[in-house]
Amino acid sequence: MPTAPDTAAVPRRGRPGYDRAQVLEVAVTLFNEQGYDATSVADLAAKLGLTKSALYHHFDSKEQLLALALDQALSELEGVLDQPAAHDGTPAERLAAVLRGAVHVLVDELPAVTLLLRVRGNSDVERAALERRRAFDHRVTALVAEAQSAGQLRADVDDAVATRLVFGMVNSLVEWYRPGGAVDVDRLAHDVVALTLDGLRTR
Amino acid sequence: MPTAPDTAAVPRRGRPGYDRAQVLEVAVTLFNEQGYDATSVADLAAKLGLTKSALYHHFDSKEQLLALALDQALSELEGVLDQPAAHDGTPAERLAAVLRGAVHVLVDELPAVTLLLRVRGNSDVERAALERRRAFDHRVTALVAEAQSAGQLRADVDDAVATRLVFGMVNSLVEWYRPGGAVDVDRLAHDVVALTLDGLRTR
Repeated sequence: MPTAPDTAAVPRRGRPGYDRAQVLEVAVTLFNEQGYDATSVADLAAKLGLTKSALYHHFDSKEQLLALALDQALSELEGVLDQPAAHDGTPAERLAAVLRGAVHVLVDELPAVTLLLRVRGNSDVERAALERRRAFDHRVTALVAEAQSAGQLRADVDDAVATRLVFGMVNSLVEWYRPGGAVDVDRLAHDVVALTLDGLRTR
Repeated sequence: MPTAPDTAAVPRRGRPGYDRAQVLEVAVTLFNEQGYDATSVADLAAKLGLTKSALYHHFDSKEQLLALALDQALSELEGVLDQPAAHDGTPAERLAAVLRGAVHVLVDELPAVTLLLRVRGNSDVERAALERRRAFDHRVTALVAEAQSAGQLRADVDDAVATRLVFGMVNSLVEWYRPGGAVDVDRLAHDVVALTLDGLRTR
């Protein structure tokens, strides 16, 4: 069955009034649905009901849209490490705050983060995004190591492996979590922290 | 830079001697590299150095290859729930055994499991695979619920959410774990059980 057009994204006829943010939002949705590489500027123009030249009025290239979306996701994630709660308290408390913050970013920026997690390094823009992701991971790993040195986190799991496993859990939310569903985001953030820091087992 | 052909997969000239398992292995690798939908039978034949008709000697269709690969991944995962360790001991011990087994299957069957995790339900074959995945998840969720009822696992995290989060962590291994790398699979299975059941925090 062919995919029905998303009528919510189809503008009224005449002079569709999109701003840059709206064009970006529709672009990210389309990239996630059919893959960035498989999406042409013509596809995006058709989805928006714009001509290609009208679309180029907003953006220089498809890659610029990708770069903006990835920057949005990465800036929000980096913001989690720069928030006050990531600098106050014990290392374990700061890690808990970072995890809660990351869950919130993932839910708030679900389309952009989904796009980020699918990046494979096929262009300079993608490679730069992967580099920023790695830098983020390194900062979290350093926090895990600090908490291990302070005796707050178990030392028998490698700091980098622990970080990958914990963010594997956080990132997996893009596969099933949908805002407005049965599970509240604060509840979800609690569950992620409960599982990763304290474990499922009763004490 | 164009991707160099994988010479290891290119057969010797003349009458390339593939058996069905080898054809399937090359097919799964190609599906993972360039996407199932984007891979044609001609692509696969070219990769194998076979004519399309020689390839059809082994398999009826591209979809049959997909179905076989997904069945392989799912059968191994289901086998984890049927192993003796999944039926002996307390519910929490059985869950730990299931998680260790799932990590091993994921590592042993990395290409097939990677393919399974990317299935989105675009055909009857894909929908049937998703249905089997859901049935697997339900069996694990029932085990989590049993352990919660027995007081062994915390009850303040929903059983289905806990299962999704834990398997989110396990499944994320396909993104970074490579056999033969720095982290041994038994170590990795230990780390996953340690994190999900006992948590990172020292007691």
